[in-house]
Amino acid sequence: MSGASHSTEELPYGPAEGAPWRSRWFHIIFGHDDAPGRAFDVVLIVAILASVLVTILDSVPALHGGYARTFYVLEWLFTAAFSVEYVLRIAVVNRPVRYMRSFFGCVDLLSLLPAYLSLLFAGSQYLLVIRALRMLRIFRILKLNRYVDESHLLVSTLARSRHKILVFVCAILTLVMIFGALMYVIEGPEHGFTSIPTSMYWAVVTMTTVGFGDITPHTVLGQLLTSVIMLVGYSIIAVPTGIFAAELAAGMREARTHARCGVCHCDEHEADARFCRRCGAVLDTSV
Amino acid sequence: MSGASHSTEELPYGPAEGAPWRSRWFHIIFGHDDAPGRAFDVVLIVAILASVLVTILDSVPALHGGYARTFYVLEWLFTAAFSVEYVLRIAVVNRPVRYMRSFFGCVDLLSLLPAYLSLLFAGSQYLLVIRALRMLRIFRILKLNRYVDESHLLVSTLARSRHKILVFVCAILTLVMIFGALMYVIEGPEHGFTSIPTSMYWAVVTMTTVGFGDITPHTVLGQLLTSVIMLVGYSIIAVPTGIFAAELAAGMREARTHARCGVCHCDEHEADARFCRRCGAVLDTSV
Amino acid sequence: MSGASHSTEELPYGPAEGAPWRSRWFHIIFGHDDAPGRAFDVVLIVAILASVLVTILDSVPALHGGYARTFYVLEWLFTAAFSVEYVLRIAVVNRPVRYMRSFFGCVDLLSLLPAYLSLLFAGSQYLLVIRALRMLRIFRILKLNRYVDESHLLVSTLARSRHKILVFVCAILTLVMIFGALMYVIEGPEHGFTSIPTSMYWAVVTMTTVGFGDITPHTVLGQLLTSVIMLVGYSIIAVPTGIFAAELAAGMREARTHARCGVCHCDEHEADARFCRRCGAVLDTSV
Amino acid sequence: MSGASHSTEELPYGPAEGAPWRSRWFHIIFGHDDAPGRAFDVVLIVAILASVLVTILDSVPALHGGYARTFYVLEWLFTAAFSVEYVLRIAVVNRPVRYMRSFFGCVDLLSLLPAYLSLLFAGSQYLLVIRALRMLRIFRILKLNRYVDESHLLVSTLARSRHKILVFVCAILTLVMIFGALMYVIEGPEHGFTSIPTSMYWAVVTMTTVGFGDITPHTVLGQLLTSVIMLVGYSIIAVPTGIFAAELAAGMREARTHARCGVCHCDEHEADARFCRRCGAVLDTSV
Repeated sequence: MSGASHSTEELPYGPAEGAPWRSRWFHIIFGHDDAPGRAFDVVLIVAILASVLVTILDSVPALHGGYARTFYVLEWLFTAAFSVEYVLRIAVVNRPVRYMRSFFGCVDLLSLLPAYLSLLFAGSQYLLVIRALRMLRIFRILKLNRYVDESHLLVSTLARSRHKILVFVCAILTLVMIFGALMYVIEGPEHGFTSIPTSMYWAVVTMTTVGFGDITPHTVLGQLLTSVIMLVGYSIIAVPTGIFAAELAAGMREARTHARCGVCHCDEHEADARFCRRCGAVLDTSV
Repeated sequence: MSGASHSTEELPYGPAEGAPWRSRWFHIIFGHDDAPGRAFDVVLIVAILASVLVTILDSVPALHGGYARTFYVLEWLFTAAFSVEYVLRIAVVNRPVRYMRSFFGCVDLLSLLPAYLSLLFAGSQYLLVIRALRMLRIFRILKLNRYVDESHLLVSTLARSRHKILVFVCAILTLVMIFGALMYVIEGPEHGFTSIPTSMYWAVVTMTTVGFGDITPHTVLGQLLTSVIMLVGYSIIAVPTGIFAAELAAGMREARTHARCGVCHCDEHEADARFCRRCGAVLDTSV
Repeated sequence: MSGASHSTEELPYGPAEGAPWRSRWFHIIFGHDDAPGRAFDVVLIVAILASVLVTILDSVPALHGGYARTFYVLEWLFTAAFSVEYVLRIAVVNRPVRYMRSFFGCVDLLSLLPAYLSLLFAGSQYLLVIRALRMLRIFRILKLNRYVDESHLLVSTLARSRHKILVFVCAILTLVMIFGALMYVIEGPEHGFTSIPTSMYWAVVTMTTVGFGDITPHTVLGQLLTSVIMLVGYSIIAVPTGIFAAELAAGMREARTHARCGVCHCDEHEADARFCRRCGAVLDTSV
Repeated sequence: MSGASHSTEELPYGPAEGAPWRSRWFHIIFGHDDAPGRAFDVVLIVAILASVLVTILDSVPALHGGYARTFYVLEWLFTAAFSVEYVLRIAVVNRPVRYMRSFFGCVDLLSLLPAYLSLLFAGSQYLLVIRALRMLRIFRILKLNRYVDESHLLVSTLARSRHKILVFVCAILTLVMIFGALMYVIEGPEHGFTSIPTSMYWAVVTMTTVGFGDITPHTVLGQLLTSVIMLVGYSIIAVPTGIFAAELAAGMREARTHARCGVCHCDEHEADARFCRRCGAVLDTSV
């Protein structure tokens, strides 16, 4: 999401030089400040929404029966329009590779692929719902800085707790493997635990407290072990929640400390600090 | 809920001027301080409880068989009484539109509508349970300031975290759409994933760890993706909990006053402190 | 649990005066310091465990078939022994009513009742597992002060958050009533939502993310509303967890501040305070 | 996991003296610094992964049918190799008993046992997945200090909250026993509650919000009690999460150093502070 970029010039790529139509179309496609740019944004958002809606409705049997042909034509119309748009984006940018490798560049390409893949593999056109990701552009278009900041805080908190959460996921996977094998040995194929992979799937279903009930223990020993697994899974909910809450609280505390020392430029002070903790100069806390 | 309004004059509307019966009835209906006002409150609460109970019991087949006529008469009696009360409330208030647009004005109207709608659409009388919302008046009647304060803190915490939670809900919905489409393509209608909307319903059931088990994956690839979806949903529980806990902790800390010591500039003192807890200077608590 | 009472004299009742056997038996039954007292404790704990185990095993059909008579005799033997013990406790105490109204007095009586009730209502003997509550005595017997302190902190945290949690439970119940009635109207008896009480049971099952799957929505509108209910329930998990975490963190912070001012005897200071926040005297933080 | 031991000499056992081949092989097996040591590590990790994979695949009926013999041979080859490795580890260490009683010594032995047990009890070879625990060695091999530190913080937080969590588990078990017996009496064997142990299993399934749905209440009283059980279980999620979050936050706060300012006695400074953040005096960070 690359921070809070609200206008065209903050993008890592600018208008292509040379032909004037390129610079003009760059401002229409990538800009959100003048009338044509805003009009393009509105058309784009409506087209994305309509395209996702068509894909979803196409999958409903009752509608597919009557309107299969209409949906087919609409899907290809949207795909054609988005393909033209993608080519145009590459054409008007001065650094096409940079755009193609950016987050939105990848999403734009990914949301075209399922349509072309459906020529080879029937059914893959339903993956066109990935176009929903293009909607994320709306944060930039509407200049919703507040939301960008909030999601930035959430993402940075997740990033800071990634080591703790990775250790945690490894522990979960090891537990799932061992509990899965134990249940496979105890219950066996006759009670639905047909293989260790199936048992591991069941262990994940149980430890995450989802509990579909498609596979359930029937022996006394199996029910006893299941009780232990559930209590372990239940206690384990505490771990990621605790990690995240503690990291977020720390992140929110840090957000309050922007006062910068005029002498050594150190800008990491706590909310109630009056003197720079690095050089001892008086902090200007009037701002 | 508008803070802690315990007596009649804090309401945004007062008694209607002119005819003296209006002022008198205003104090009976909206006041909680004298004997007639309290008597009216008790009768109202009992009537609301009885009305909700009648609606609930009417829906039980075993009781509906024998007492359908009794329930029907009772429901219309309560509706008539509440309709008269609503008209009376409008009549005795000096600013009827303000009352009608207030929280309790809307609830009072909403709890009448299902009865009249049931003349057009059979079955809608069961929505009369919405009258339960009128019970919220009890906090004001019993002057339960403590509870009003507590719910105020909860509501303001929710309000402060609304940006973070909105970003979070958008992320969930995008994930639900993409996971739903993937499972529809992988499992297909023969395993219960009959359309993308159904798949999305299943994805919500799974990510919230509810797991009804009415639709379950049967292919190996589907079970693998389901494991990923469950672990993602499980990890995601951490996010709103962490947001809320961190915001609530911050809200509780803010409840401390911020009297600043004139000598050492320490400004973290508790509400009843008279001396700086760090340097011992007298605090200026006049502000 | 009444704090940390580790020896006999901290009990709210003492040995009965008069006959010396009473004082002697009081020390055996209520004391944990000398050899006879400890022997009585061990016998009591073993008897409680054995009694609960007999009740649980008696309910297993495979065992009930062969050993029904043995279990029956054993249950009545334990009941007789515990009845004698209860009478003895009353006889040797100087304030019998106080004992009978204390927490353990009520539990001791409650764990006798199901046996005598089973003479009137077959099956109620299985409620004898309530004897497990008598095991709580073990904390006092083993002088597990640490555990008493910990449970004291947990209980006091729960007590302090009771207002917030009561407001929260009221909100949940109102939501359950309204969602239950809506689902009853939308889905109707033909899909398992046979009455509003059943719908409310289903709403609780869904909002708590248990999701048995015995009743599930079948209409599109029902599945849409269910998705909303689940997301609401899912978000709501945040509320009690956040309340409890914030209160517990506050409770743990408070536990660190014991320094008492030598001048005004104020003993509520924060961990890093050097001067009394009430009278300004220097705090003695050497302890 | 014993902290951050990254090189051979931090192990609680060293190379065996005497024959030079022992010292040489000790560095190959236990060391991770030179080429032969790293080569051994890579071979070991690959062998463990392959061995676990063979065990899991062997349990899939479709594969077991065609490749049972291959899997059988492979499993015994891996077992033979790991047995030789285990004997070698004992031979080259100067304190064999210490190695055998260390965490990895126990895991190394445990991951051999199921293979030999399968000669006596058919099916126990599937427990070979316990070899996955040997993978934990990877943290030491890759010198992933960060992860070791993170898991150390998580483990120490869990250790510090163990008293609170033990009290909590006792409370849960008592509730499960009492709720289980009540549901057995209310619903009875005809609705699936065939015995108190089964009812207790159901109570754990319900209170942990797993909700398989294999056993569900059918009477009105049973559904009412179930609603209470679910709301209790739901509220109880708050407890371990709150405990863990509060302890983790405290643990992260403690990570700050406690250098005390000689002038204003402020002792909350961050690890790299050189001046008091409150009065500006130079901090004595020599301690």
